[in-house]
Amino acid sequence: MKLLRVGPVGAERPAVLDESGTPRDLSGLVKDIDGALLGDAAALAGIREAVASGELPALDATDSRIGPPLGRIGKIVCIGLNYHDHATETGAAIPAEPILFMKAPDTVVGPDDTVLVPRGSEKTDWEVELAVVIGRTARYLESDEEALASVAGYAIAHDVSERAFQIERGGQWDKGKNCETFNPLGPWLVTADEIPDPQALALRLWVNGELKQDGTTADQIFPVAQVVRYLSQFMTLYPGDVINTGTPAGVALGQPEPKPYLRAGDVVELEIDGLGRQRQELKDA
Amino acid sequence: MKLLRVGPVGAERPAVLDESGTPRDLSGLVKDIDGALLGDAAALAGIREAVASGELPALDATDSRIGPPLGRIGKIVCIGLNYHDHATETGAAIPAEPILFMKAPDTVVGPDDTVLVPRGSEKTDWEVELAVVIGRTARYLESDEEALASVAGYAIAHDVSERAFQIERGGQWDKGKNCETFNPLGPWLVTADEIPDPQALALRLWVNGELKQDGTTADQIFPVAQVVRYLSQFMTLYPGDVINTGTPAGVALGQPEPKPYLRAGDVVELEIDGLGRQRQELKDA
Repeated sequence: MKLLRVGPVGAERPAVLDESGTPRDLSGLVKDIDGALLGDAAALAGIREAVASGELPALDATDSRIGPPLGRIGKIVCIGLNYHDHATETGAAIPAEPILFMKAPDTVVGPDDTVLVPRGSEKTDWEVELAVVIGRTARYLESDEEALASVAGYAIAHDVSERAFQIERGGQWDKGKNCETFNPLGPWLVTADEIPDPQALALRLWVNGELKQDGTTADQIFPVAQVVRYLSQFMTLYPGDVINTGTPAGVALGQPEPKPYLRAGDVVELEIDGLGRQRQELKDA
Repeated sequence: MKLLRVGPVGAERPAVLDESGTPRDLSGLVKDIDGALLGDAAALAGIREAVASGELPALDATDSRIGPPLGRIGKIVCIGLNYHDHATETGAAIPAEPILFMKAPDTVVGPDDTVLVPRGSEKTDWEVELAVVIGRTARYLESDEEALASVAGYAIAHDVSERAFQIERGGQWDKGKNCETFNPLGPWLVTADEIPDPQALALRLWVNGELKQDGTTADQIFPVAQVVRYLSQFMTLYPGDVINTGTPAGVALGQPEPKPYLRAGDVVELEIDGLGRQRQELKDA
């Protein structure tokens, strides 16, 4: 299933795409698309039945904004330098174990919402990423099978990053990862049954129509199952948590000088096989 | 006012201490103690009036557990190496600007709840900290006055830390800061009017009755107002966000070998002037 949330900021309605790609309103059936729903197998089965019945109302076209496909996100854990080609382009060594940092859930916006270049920023950068959404509590997992069983689905995440804040301002990366609007998510939360192999997805990102990132999750240093299992040794993952699994080569940081960092007016588009497409225009904060 | 939440995990009731120190039930007046309440001056005034009237019901003594004094926490931003004496004991340089890392809100437990030593941990460490609770949205603040006006109140936070996970496992500190139960908070959220000078508070921490940390917020490298103003340049702070403002000297990491890291059975007690006292027993996860 492709779950989504449609409507104004903060008042999105839960929806699901039918076979023709039309959003159908789920607000009569479920309260929201969130961790509680993703952890509730009976409720998810109820949505499948309702879609199959063809009786769900189509969503009013005036509700045209697509919001992030997940509400009440608990935490966002991010994996750094998780693609061989991206580690190489940044001049970093291949990590011996996953590098972990965090974004606050309040950085999440819809897939086509405006992204704000922070005040004082000269190095706002793009990163297309496969986001993993947790559906079952994951704590000290022992196998890759358990890890994949805890994944409810997948989405596109744009892990927007301010490189000067991240790297040049003392200390930890989180400083350049948590500016407002820095995590467009969606358009859909695609349930895991539709993504039989999360390590075989092409990811692409364009800036002003020019292809900048053209990678595949096959190049991930630590694949999804290993990332989930690894994280569960250091923290408990709960339904509704999100993992941004890293970005392939092609970010501005990896280009020759002068590096083409983002400015107001730029348009970024992102795509992952089976997960849809995002488009953001940049504006000044 | 001293706001608190009393009751079983996940079902705490909002309460306030009366003049005699008795918790009075606020559940007839407000839904919870959270960002929405802290941003609502009229609701806070209503609580003050209700306390003054003496008509709030005393809380049933069977509801004796004290939970964290804040629900629905949005994010927890932490400042690293923010006391001169702690930076010195760890051998670190005095930071030129605040070092920032993050803890997930799901690490928060009550002030007297069990703290779990993670599996595989040999370096679980203590850190008593002044927590700042945000009550007004803070975005690109220009003055210390605006910064302090955005503070709703203060609490004790125990920023439990696994040093091997934090420092020896590749990359960012967040890996050793987000284990379950790693952020006891409370007992009270003390409103800012009761803390006229947040830079004049003594902080103390004992392990098994032995005084380990005995500091003062006067030693903070970046005082509260400066921290809030600084953070607001990199992220938006919302009502219900928490800032852990760093720890003074005396952590296990700063001791000679063999460093006295925490183990199951140890008891940690923490105290900050005017903010109450915590007591946690450690158990194995």
